[in-house]
Formats: sequence, C-alpha cells, structure tokens
Amino acid sequence: MAIPSRIAHLGHVELLTPEPERSLWFFTEILGLTEHSRDGDSVFLRTWDDYELYSLVLTAHETSGLRRTALRTTGQRELDELVAAAEAAGRGGRWLGPSAGLGPSYLCTDPDGHEIRLYWETEWYQAPEGLRPSLKNQAQAYPGRGVGVRRLDHVNFLAAEPGPNGEFVQDVLGGRVTEQIVNDDGSVAAQWLTFTNKSYDLVYTGDWTGSNGRLHHLAFAADTREDILRAADICLDHDVFIETGPHKHAIQQTFFLYVYEPGGNRVELCNPLTRLILAPDWRPITWTQAERAKGQAWGLKTIESFHTHGTPPVEEVPVAEA
Amino acid sequence: MAIPSRIAHLGHVELLTPEPERSLWFFTEILGLTEHSRDGDSVFLRTWDDYELYSLVLTAHETSGLRRTALRTTGQRELDELVAAAEAAGRGGRWLGPSAGLGPSYLCTDPDGHEIRLYWETEWYQAPEGLRPSLKNQAQAYPGRGVGVRRLDHVNFLAAEPGPNGEFVQDVLGGRVTEQIVNDDGSVAAQWLTFTNKSYDLVYTGDWTGSNGRLHHLAFAADTREDILRAADICLDHDVFIETGPHKHAIQQTFFLYVYEPGGNRVELCNPLTRLILAPDWRPITWTQAERAKGQAWGLKTIESFHTHGTPPVEEVPVAEA
Amino acid sequence: MAIPSRIAHLGHVELLTPEPERSLWFFTEILGLTEHSRDGDSVFLRTWDDYELYSLVLTAHETSGLRRTALRTTGQRELDELVAAAEAAGRGGRWLGPSAGLGPSYLCTDPDGHEIRLYWETEWYQAPEGLRPSLKNQAQAYPGRGVGVRRLDHVNFLAAEPGPNGEFVQDVLGGRVTEQIVNDDGSVAAQWLTFTNKSYDLVYTGDWTGSNGRLHHLAFAADTREDILRAADICLDHDVFIETGPHKHAIQQTFFLYVYEPGGNRVELCNPLTRLILAPDWRPITWTQAERAKGQAWGLKTIESFHTHGTPPVEEVPVAEA
Amino acid sequence: MAIPSRIAHLGHVELLTPEPERSLWFFTEILGLTEHSRDGDSVFLRTWDDYELYSLVLTAHETSGLRRTALRTTGQRELDELVAAAEAAGRGGRWLGPSAGLGPSYLCTDPDGHEIRLYWETEWYQAPEGLRPSLKNQAQAYPGRGVGVRRLDHVNFLAAEPGPNGEFVQDVLGGRVTEQIVNDDGSVAAQWLTFTNKSYDLVYTGDWTGSNGRLHHLAFAADTREDILRAADICLDHDVFIETGPHKHAIQQTFFLYVYEPGGNRVELCNPLTRLILAPDWRPITWTQAERAKGQAWGLKTIESFHTHGTPPVEEVPVAEA
Repeated sequence: MAIPSRIAHLGHVELLTPEPERSLWFFTEILGLTEHSRDGDSVFLRTWDDYELYSLVLTAHETSGLRRTALRTTGQRELDELVAAAEAAGRGGRWLGPSAGLGPSYLCTDPDGHEIRLYWETEWYQAPEGLRPSLKNQAQAYPGRGVGVRRLDHVNFLAAEPGPNGEFVQDVLGGRVTEQIVNDDGSVAAQWLTFTNKSYDLVYTGDWTGSNGRLHHLAFAADTREDILRAADICLDHDVFIETGPHKHAIQQTFFLYVYEPGGNRVELCNPLTRLILAPDWRPITWTQAERAKGQAWGLKTIESFHTHGTPPVEEVPVAEA
Repeated sequence: MAIPSRIAHLGHVELLTPEPERSLWFFTEILGLTEHSRDGDSVFLRTWDDYELYSLVLTAHETSGLRRTALRTTGQRELDELVAAAEAAGRGGRWLGPSAGLGPSYLCTDPDGHEIRLYWETEWYQAPEGLRPSLKNQAQAYPGRGVGVRRLDHVNFLAAEPGPNGEFVQDVLGGRVTEQIVNDDGSVAAQWLTFTNKSYDLVYTGDWTGSNGRLHHLAFAADTREDILRAADICLDHDVFIETGPHKHAIQQTFFLYVYEPGGNRVELCNPLTRLILAPDWRPITWTQAERAKGQAWGLKTIESFHTHGTPPVEEVPVAEA
Repeated sequence: MAIPSRIAHLGHVELLTPEPERSLWFFTEILGLTEHSRDGDSVFLRTWDDYELYSLVLTAHETSGLRRTALRTTGQRELDELVAAAEAAGRGGRWLGPSAGLGPSYLCTDPDGHEIRLYWETEWYQAPEGLRPSLKNQAQAYPGRGVGVRRLDHVNFLAAEPGPNGEFVQDVLGGRVTEQIVNDDGSVAAQWLTFTNKSYDLVYTGDWTGSNGRLHHLAFAADTREDILRAADICLDHDVFIETGPHKHAIQQTFFLYVYEPGGNRVELCNPLTRLILAPDWRPITWTQAERAKGQAWGLKTIESFHTHGTPPVEEVPVAEA
Repeated sequence: MAIPSRIAHLGHVELLTPEPERSLWFFTEILGLTEHSRDGDSVFLRTWDDYELYSLVLTAHETSGLRRTALRTTGQRELDELVAAAEAAGRGGRWLGPSAGLGPSYLCTDPDGHEIRLYWETEWYQAPEGLRPSLKNQAQAYPGRGVGVRRLDHVNFLAAEPGPNGEFVQDVLGGRVTEQIVNDDGSVAAQWLTFTNKSYDLVYTGDWTGSNGRLHHLAFAADTREDILRAADICLDHDVFIETGPHKHAIQQTFFLYVYEPGGNRVELCNPLTRLILAPDWRPITWTQAERAKGQAWGLKTIESFHTHGTPPVEEVPVAEA
C-alpha cells in the first residue's frame, strides 16, 4: 500500500428527494432509522449503531439524487494532508465551518463532480431517555421497527468515466480497489474501493447517459440475510417498489435487495455476511464483460433497469451501455 | 387413533391483565399484533396470518391469568358431538350466544377448571384498506413492527394434576399425546397434546402450589429462529423481562424465548422450524425425571422460575415441586 | 369437509435416474440423505427425521422420471376404504405383498397414469450405533453434511389435464385444494392439494407436451431459509445446476430453490416457514393467468424452463403452453 | 491513534492436542476445515476463505494448549519496525527461516510468555482441482460439511496479569483496546484488542491459577447465527462437548457457542453479525465487576467453567478468581 488510507470510513450522505414526506416515511418506518434533528429542508437521520449523530441527511429538493458524501478522516493531520493532496491534484475545494455536530470540513469533488466532504471532528451521540440501549457498547436502543438497518454501508456513484474517479479515490484519498469490471477495450466499467476492512465503501459505475454527478444507489447494511428477506416482505406489503433481489452478488458476494425510495433514489439493503478484506496486499479481482454477463452468484440475471435508472433522472440520449 | 379429533385448531385465548395499557403496548408494539376491535374492558388482537378476526382477547382485570381458551371444531356436527361427549363425561357446560365474530359456542371446563370454549361458526377476516396484503393467500399485510408473530401457537396450562386433564383432552376432545414427562411414581408431570400436525397445541404442567385453573404460559410462533433472536434484542432494549432463552427445548425441540408481558403473564416466543407430527400412530415420547433434569437441548438448565411463576399469582405454600 | 382424509401423509417416492452413481452422490452429499439399504438397482434413502425407514427410493433406469408415489393411510380400515373407493371410481389397481419395511400395499394410478401406492403398515426406524440422535424425539442424528433436509415435502406431477387428477385426489383420496391456477377458459392450470396441515402435499401442473405420467419436481423441506441459501452455495460450488431461486413463491409463499439432480430430475429445496393450513374449511385461493404472469412474490419472473423441462424427457411437439 | 497498527491481521495459530486423530476429525468434519498439508506431527488446516495457505496448525503433543500465534504485518518495513520495537521494549526474540508458505518470521513473546510470530511474506493459496470455487473472489469452494467456518477470528489468551499484556499489544504491536473489564481495584480483568475494523483480534483474560502462557479459547467465525445454531445441533449429535451457548455476549455482542475439541482446548464458534469498529478514535468500553456479574446479553449467566478451564491444564491451586 503505497498510500496509507487517511480516510477512516464513510460518514454520511445528503440525499435529495422531491417527495420529502414519503421519503422520510420510508427511511424511518421501512428502514427503521431514527430522526435526530431538522434544519430547514433537511432531516438528519441515524441508525441505531451510528456513533456519530447521523448518517443520512434527507433534503427536500426539486429532484432526486445525491448532494454530498462525507468521509471521516483518521485524524486532524490526515485531514490537512488530504486537503493538500486534493489541491495538489487540482481537485481543491473550500472549507466549511462547523455545523450539525461536525467540526470544520473541506468540500471537494471527484473528477465526475460528486461532492466529497472531508472532516475529522465529530460529536459522539448520547442517546436521550427513551432511546438508551441496554448494552453500553451500543449507541442507541434497537428500534424494532422496519428493517432495523445497522449502518450506511456504501455509495455507488454513476460516473461518465469510472476509471479516473477510481484513480482519484486511490491516489488522493488512499482508497484501495478490491474488485472491478474491466471492459474488453481496457476501460473500467465499474470499480469497488475501500478505506477499511469492509470489502467496499465507494463504487463507481459507468453512467450510460454520459452525465456527471449522479447516483446509482445508496446501501444500508442489515445484520442478517433474514433481515433482508424480511425487508422484502415489508416492502411488498407497504408498496415500496422492489427492483430486484433478494439474491447474492457474484461481485463482492453481498446478499442484496434493491428498492426505490419514494423520491426515486435506488436504495440497496445489503448483508455482507462476515466477509472482510484483511490482506493488506489484496489483489484486485477483475471481472470481464463476459463474466459480468453471467449475472449474479446463483444465476439471477442482472436487471435491465440497473443500466437505465439513476438519480436525478436525465433526458439525454444514452451514449453508451454501461 | 380410536377417537378422531373433532377439534381443528386452537382459536383464541382471553388473557387477563392488571396493566391493560402496558400489556396492550407489549402485544402490539413488541409482538406486532394488530388491534381489531374493543368491547368494554377487552381489546381483540390479531396476528397478520389469522384467518379469523382475532386470536387474543386482552381483558383488563384485577389479576393476571387466563380466562378462557377457545377451540374451533372441524364442523357443526363435530361441535354437537363434542358437547355430547363433554356432558357424557360429566364435564358439561353451557351455550353462549353468538358474539364477536363467532357463532354459538359451548363453554365447558377441563378437570382443573380452565374454561374451554368450543365453536364452529366463525367470521373470516377481510383486511381493510391500509392493512391489505399484497398476496391474496395471506390474511393481512405483514406489519414490520416488533417481532411480527404469525400465530397463537399453544397454551401451557398449570394443573394440580396434569394426568386427568390430559385424559380429558384425549378422551373427550380427541387430542393426542406427543410427548410427556412421567414422574418416577408413574404420575404425569407434564403432557403435550395436539389436535393437528403441529407437535402440540395444549400442554398441562403440574402446578407446584396445588392451585387450579392457572396459566404457565401462552406461546406465539414466529417464522424464523432469527425472529426469536431479534425478539430478544427488542425485549432487551424495551425493558421487557426476559426469563430464559433463546435456546432449544429438548422436549419437542422448539426454539424458545420466555418473557413476561407487563401484566405478569409468561409469554413464549417460539419457532418449531419445520417439525410436524405426520405419523397417525405417533408413539408418545416419555421423558423421565432424570432425563428432564438434564435441561434443554444444548445444555441450558431449566430456569428455577419455571417452577415458581404462574398466573394469577397465588399465596399458597407450595405443596410439591413440579 | 365432505370426505375426511384417509391419507396421513406422503410416504416415499421412487425416482428413476440414468446416472445412478451421480444421483446418489447428489442425494447423500448435497442433500444430506442417509443410505438405508439397497435392493437390486435401487437404493433406499432417508432423511434424519424420517420415522419410517426411507422416503426416497433411487432406482437406476434408462431414463429419468418418477416411478411411484407412496401415501400412508391413517389406518388399516382407511386403507381398505380407499381401495374400495378407487375401485368404485374405476381406478382400481392391485395389491403388492409386504416389502422393504412396508406391509401390504395397493397400487393404483391417478387419471394421468402416475402410480400411487397406498399402505398402512410400516416399520419404524431404529437408528443403529453411529446414527443415534442425542434427543429421543428425533429419528436419527443430524448429519451435518450438505443441506441436511428434514423431509420429503411434496411431489409436483405433470399431467396432460390437471383438473381430473385434482378431482381424483379430492374425491377418492380425500385431499383438499388449498390453491390453484385457473385458466381464463375455466380449466385448471395447476392445483395444490393437501392431506395434512401442510399447505400442500401433491401438486398437478399442466404438461405442455400433452404427455402422461411425468414429473415436474420433487421437493425436500429444510428447516430454515438460511439452509436454502446455504444450499445455493453448496450447489454453486459443487456443480449442481441451479435453475432458479432462491426466492419466495407467490403461490403458497414457500421459499424455494430449484436444481436438477444429475439424473435430470428437478428437485426443489423448500422452506415453508411456519405456515400451516389450520382452517378445516379453508377457502381455496384461485389465481388467474394474469396474476400468475406477475411472477414470484418479490418480483422474480417465473423461469421459462419451468414450462419446458419435465422428466422423463419427451420429444413430442408441445401442444399447449401450461 | 498514537501508534498506527503495523499488524494487518491474525494469521494462524498452532494448537497442541494430546488426541491428534480426534482433534483432526473435529476440525475437519465438525468445523469443516480442509487439510492442506502435513509436516511431522503437524497438520495444516485452512478455512474456505483463507487467502493464505492455512490458519490452523494442529500439532500432536503430550498436552493441550497453544504453541504460537502468528500475526501478519502490513509490509516488510512494518515487520522490521515491529522487530525493533519489540527489542526496544525488552521483548526481543529471534528470526525463523522461511517455512510452510511463509517468508522469514520473527518469534517473540508477550509478557505472559505466549509466543507471537510476526511475518510479512506469505504464499497465496491456489485451489487445486476439486476445491476450486465458482466465484473468483473466493479462495476455495465452500465445503458443505460441518459448520463451514469462514475464518480464524480471534485468540483469547489467559495471562497471570492481563494489564501488562494489553499494554504490550498496544505499545509494541499497535493494537487498540475496544472493550475491557476493570476490577474494582483498578486492575484489568480482561481486555479486548484489535488491529483491524473487527471489534477484537486478541483478548487477554486473567488466569485464576496464576500460570503463564495458557489459552482460554480460539474462535472461528461462521457467516450467520443460523450457522451457530446448526453447529450446536451438529455438536449435540456428534458428541462434541458443549460448554455454553448459543447466546449473545454482552461484551462485544458476539453471538457465541463454546465447545471443547477432543484434545481439551476450548473453541468458540462465533458470529459478530455486521458489527465493526469504524471510529478511528473509538472510546474503549469499560465494564465493572458488577456489570460483568450480570451475565450475558439476554441474561444467561456466565458459566462457572469459564473461570476454571484453560489449556494446558495445570494443577496449581487457584490463587484468585478471575
């Protein structure tokens, strides 16, 4: 590892929704997140295991999509080093003042234009009366409502060209590629990157419309595959659109269910079992177009809308099939 | 099978609670039952898979305990035959008029004095808007709240003498013994009886106080063992008293968790996996006192309060250890 | 219920395979059955929960397919009554002498020509040293090998015309219809029937080739959905062909995985959760062609080969799409 | 984090057994490990997800116990730095030449005398014909035999004084304390340390005999809680001694089952769900003696033998109750 990761983990995302009431219902009643606070058009939501105040900021907006992805650094010095690295790479941004439980943060963008917020200082959550857990090694009481997801797990960005974005994550942020799909022409079709022992934290997938800054999906991890199966029943009986699954990905072997939240954003409910990438010199797994065409682990074909639905919607004519 | 069962299945129970508000919270928020209707001091509650209107009647009362257990017959003729059999056995009771979704029913008692309500006519549930399931072979939408139990599974009665009560269930009601504990002196310490392919519907356990008509526990079945494990976390973080488990019973092999609902009644959350008794000439399994003393399937010792806690509470001096 | 069921449960099936060695490997190493004995070209196989000697007879043959389905009656008198009923219905057969743990049995056929063997007397299994279970309410030690299925769950017959076969099961054998697919022209496309509290024991599906006596699939039940998911991984890594799943059926809500055993017969690994049909007057659920076309519970499309693969293979030109 | 971890992960352990044949049966047939190779009295065993050649060396010996724990470093430079740090701390050891798939390694000891082997170079496993997985991101085919554990998860060392050993892991090896039990007198009763995002890799527990260098238990992680429940049944029916569980630890919340392998060593089968420690500045959770006395998460009392059984056995009179 030439560049040690200065990123500790995915912190939170800000998600945009044109259906704020119904999206809030989805995240609280279906996924089981807890509302922490509100500010203007935004609601701050947390899982029961978030040690920080929140991991999802849900913001009413004219369209769907992702406004921002926040990454916590491993320290203040590492934050400063990352800022220097971003500026040196020509991807410099600007500092934001402390807000909503965070200290100063630095806002930059990946080459495709997705906003990346880097921060170190954060407020640790203290559960109020009524939300206190019985076990002191847990942030908040387990809600017993909806799916009961444990954490924001990863973000899958659409990018006009995945390759340069993956390079940015590796070269500037210190991420590592664990798996990827490489087209027959040598270009990267999709790339899975991690800052941790999780097998991925960020993913770049080619945007078939050639657009920039869009979202393929957000993922929340639940504790068991049974939680994912139960989630499918909950979605079925509460009119949440199920796109595909549950099934097991060939790539990364994650057990998955894809749904659309009412604002139109794709949300994955996932369970990685106990799989971790512990090898410090992990050798990236490269899948060819032919291998990818085989579908998912147990034979499910990859659903067509995986290559046509991203947020926000765009009207451009597709320029390429990812 | 000398006497074919004229009982189709356990229908519902009426449970008494001195803490009606908190008990209702337990059954709706923790177990995930749905309130169907109210009548006086009683709330009628249903699981999402109940084809009848309800399976639990929760009634405010000065004490805890079980008022009544209702059994649905396999037909009108069979109901009449059962009434005749009860009367012939000297256990005759009285007819009740139609009420709360049921046709005429007959109220008798087992030898220990537990009220048994026999009925045939019943109203089939039609889910209202907002509770409609997506699949037409399901009674109601899956709630996605609390444990989400599927059905009232069985009732475990305390009885001063289990033996004669088990004989009543066999000889009058046509139940079959699937497993039992027999004391070294030949008396029955506990007996599990079924009317169905379920391995038990009713259980009689010796009451160490010599009292009559009390309850050891009610049980609700959930679909998976993961549901039971999740139930333990939900109870842990919502201050529901966990008595013992989760673990696997040696007798009947049921996966179990015992908790006390706020009114003091013991409630089992259970999962039988896919175990059924399909042999029409099943040979009852008899456990000795010594075998029973070994504890549960994987080695958990049977908890002491299993032999000291029943409802309603009584002040009598224990006359015997069950 | 006009006609009480005189059938207690599905006993065993005799399955034909042109690949006897590899089929045996599949049933013992992948499904986890135990070989009980052999006789000529047949191997008698049992699950760990079979109270009888075996539930699968695997017979080397020039083709795949199902030779026979055995049903245990609820008594000797009921066996005699069934024989009389079969003869009265013009579906009489012949008596077979005692063999392989069974007393006298009667061999008849359903209207489509599938052999049905009726029997009452049966030998109860006594586990030999090395296969003894720790708990005396279990037939055999849990093997800890492969999927570890608990029981033969159901048989899905192909029939040129499902309707008359379902009528035979109802009128002669006393089965009940729990769910069915009815074509827009009023004919039965598929019908699920039960003799027990299981939601189905036998299924008839229309044979698109117009052939008689063929098999759609056999099903074995495993204890948990996790067992089914694990089965998919076992099959994946041991080159067992996965046809479709795991997923949840809309009809009957069974969690399923379909694979082909090496002899070409389709085998379902299924888990019904704790679903039972307890209502004695269950109202059959009827699905239309349009409803069926929607696919499985969570949206998976029914796989095309479900309508093209049956055993033994036939070369006829399809006359109708089931 | 003052000292960045130079340890990537737990590599393997060498376990001693006076019952080599039966211990080998346990690890291969019950846990589902695969034999990789042999050398003298040692068998090298691997899980299906080990990217290295093996994670358990099972060595025939006159007693039980742990000979050695191997930790892989994050690089060659980090290995050299660790050697320098160990020597500077007065805990220097000696270099071992390459062997059994490893490059040069350095053997030192923790203050309690447990051998710690540090290494960087390692051979990546290439599955031979017959053990090849279907998915290229997996090291070996899933065995479908026994529990099917995924990885060696952690080692719990007994130490006369846990405190100084935990300091060694922190100060020399760069580990982090995630949870601990602190006695009322301020001494450390037990400490959980990690080098990764796993919530612990090494644990020190006070040895009630005052002995040095002993083992409390080894742990292997399985993918699901259902795997752990199934493991309990496999152990039950194959005469593997179950000490306690399955249940959920209060500390670290791990779902656990403790058994003794035939050589006498305690083995934990564990599942951490998806819990990870992602906060780079995680605040160690400290449990008091009183809190520890409450038992496990759902109320199971900590079993007495947890404080009396370690390997190898010693005859000393206990000097203190841990």
